[in-house]
Amino acid sequence: MINIAVLGYGTIGSGVVEVLNTNGESIKKRAGDRINIKYVLDLREFPGDPVMEKLVHDVNIILEDPEVKIIVEVMGGVNPAYKFVKESLLRGKSVITSNKELVAKHGAELLDLAKEKNLNFLFEASVGGGIPIIRPLNQSLTADEIVEITGILNGTTNYILSKMSDDGMEFEAALKNAQNMGYAERNPEADIEGHDSCRKIAILSSLAFGMQVDFEDIYTEGITQISAADIKYAKALGARIKLFASSIRENDKSVYAMVAPMMIKVNHPLYSVNDVFNGIFVRGNVIGDVMFYGSGAGKLPTASAVVADVVDAAKHLGTNIWTIWSSKKLELTDINQVQHRFFVRVKDDSSMENKIKSLFGEVERVIVEGVQDEYAFITPTMTEQDMKEKKANLSGMISMIRVRF
Amino acid sequence: MINIAVLGYGTIGSGVVEVLNTNGESIKKRAGDRINIKYVLDLREFPGDPVMEKLVHDVNIILEDPEVKIIVEVMGGVNPAYKFVKESLLRGKSVITSNKELVAKHGAELLDLAKEKNLNFLFEASVGGGIPIIRPLNQSLTADEIVEITGILNGTTNYILSKMSDDGMEFEAALKNAQNMGYAERNPEADIEGHDSCRKIAILSSLAFGMQVDFEDIYTEGITQISAADIKYAKALGARIKLFASSIRENDKSVYAMVAPMMIKVNHPLYSVNDVFNGIFVRGNVIGDVMFYGSGAGKLPTASAVVADVVDAAKHLGTNIWTIWSSKKLELTDINQVQHRFFVRVKDDSSMENKIKSLFGEVERVIVEGVQDEYAFITPTMTEQDMKEKKANLSGMISMIRVRF
Repeated sequence: MINIAVLGYGTIGSGVVEVLNTNGESIKKRAGDRINIKYVLDLREFPGDPVMEKLVHDVNIILEDPEVKIIVEVMGGVNPAYKFVKESLLRGKSVITSNKELVAKHGAELLDLAKEKNLNFLFEASVGGGIPIIRPLNQSLTADEIVEITGILNGTTNYILSKMSDDGMEFEAALKNAQNMGYAERNPEADIEGHDSCRKIAILSSLAFGMQVDFEDIYTEGITQISAADIKYAKALGARIKLFASSIRENDKSVYAMVAPMMIKVNHPLYSVNDVFNGIFVRGNVIGDVMFYGSGAGKLPTASAVVADVVDAAKHLGTNIWTIWSSKKLELTDINQVQHRFFVRVKDDSSMENKIKSLFGEVERVIVEGVQDEYAFITPTMTEQDMKEKKANLSGMISMIRVRF
Repeated sequence: MINIAVLGYGTIGSGVVEVLNTNGESIKKRAGDRINIKYVLDLREFPGDPVMEKLVHDVNIILEDPEVKIIVEVMGGVNPAYKFVKESLLRGKSVITSNKELVAKHGAELLDLAKEKNLNFLFEASVGGGIPIIRPLNQSLTADEIVEITGILNGTTNYILSKMSDDGMEFEAALKNAQNMGYAERNPEADIEGHDSCRKIAILSSLAFGMQVDFEDIYTEGITQISAADIKYAKALGARIKLFASSIRENDKSVYAMVAPMMIKVNHPLYSVNDVFNGIFVRGNVIGDVMFYGSGAGKLPTASAVVADVVDAAKHLGTNIWTIWSSKKLELTDINQVQHRFFVRVKDDSSMENKIKSLFGEVERVIVEGVQDEYAFITPTMTEQDMKEKKANLSGMISMIRVRF
């Protein structure tokens, strides 16, 4: 029997309990021993819930119990999670976490500490919910040099964009719908402003390139500026708008990373990733293109990933699973030097056509039914810096969305 | 330095050499040591190729060299691969293989032997080329009970079906095109009759359910009967025809497995897997649906998976990576009891409508432009046995394709 403790009895914590109850027998076979939850830490009480037998309010009871070999941290947030996780490792307990903020900020340090102590620090559930992506990156794509990782990493924004596309809704209405469905929080900022995707692509980039990618360095735009009219234009172009979180190494040189809405067409492997689903596209220099798809959030899918990490930690008691993530900082390419094509909408007036021609050269005008008094087009490939400068000379810009086709 | 030997210098073998040359530095970081190819076994000579320095014609030179820790078997076929692999394990060398015939037939035995000797027998490249699927099944989906695995596991047939769909070609013309492109062999039987997919789903099923699934027990139909007219009907229905290799556990009861063409619609995650790409859909009882996508064949993608296994074996010298695949046989559900809906085309005559009504009840007729003198419809859900009996009473059936929508 291997004793574990779960820190936090929220959605994921209760999911972990449920998964271990439901699949206990098959998990025992996979882990080689029965996984027993000895403690659950939460400040709240849960009257009538069988968890009460295991509930403790003081983390020290767990930290000081030498029988507990594995800690599952599913509280979220950096504090006090960081303190609890570090202390667990210092006391010889492996740690599993689903906490993207913690991993993005302290992943390198906690991996180092786990290695030094011959323990494990695993975090499959921190990105892509149930989708296996961390372990494939660490253990399956090891023959490759990663050239690109691009993910639809946030289910809430993907749901909102799908809803806008399917039902012609404006952003605010689709957000309200997502909140009513329980897909978006009452304070949705972390999702809709791209911060959640930003933490996740920081983690994936650090693992793919083996060095620290600080999330603060990643250029991040959310989806709050996307309108029903933008979606109409996308449809007219045979395209969809997705919130992409990308990190890309160009021409064997340095890496750029960004989170921003992107127009893509049907030939992109992430085009069919709709609703609350997530998808992660990886390009390696020998494997070519691979894509991973599944539920990016939700109680049971996320708990499935957490428990799979528990199984792995149980099989590796006393052995560190090697993960390359140096604390040395990866200097990212200045975003102003990155090149894209841009979809642009401007207010139409008599001089607009000439102004656009002088700024961008010959461009193809995009027309959709029912949208008037404006002029929309796709620019040639240019740097973000170029685009900024042209934008300054172009009064009346309504919207601008990057294009990947 | 870790010495390895490569058995077979064909497409994949030369790919393995190329990948280790191209990405040697990053692979060294991942493996913790430099991977050195000490020998390459092949009966042929390769004048002018640097491989000549390492080429041997006698496997005993490799087997008897204690410096060789890992054997890469990429010869294909059961004989003499089985003999060489078994002997390698008996002499204390871990084995990596891309050989689906060998794994489907002897996987359980070779895994047992590797475990007994504290070695590893790894075969990521045997299914799905470069796509990580074996390791995710063994190590990532360990918290789940697998309910379904369905794959498009053969790039050749997927290319042929895509070509038929895109260009309206008949099967024979699309096969010829695939042969000209180098995607199909001159003797294409193993691909187009479904045997290749059958071996692969046997491997995935054995791993998913932890017991031996014999490929001989899997009902297998190829794509040779699919016509341009079938594809036209599929399009009229908003569907595509794909060669599915499935194993499905129904209602917590026994598992059925089959390889057969299937009509699917856009809401199926494998709908967008086209051309030579492969996709593998997995449903678990807690994780829900996940999908893996990428190049299912090809020199470098397959070699990438082989070398990733070499890295894993190098990191686990002296430690067996646990894989659950008992030699105990899994008794599959009799295929006659499996239920589907069926798309059916019959020659039309004055009495057909009534005959169909009496056999199948009210069905919806499917009509496409330019196809006359026939009656096409989709049946209600029924067992394969029922369908067989009805088919016997229905003269003039032109084609019958299972439907998953």
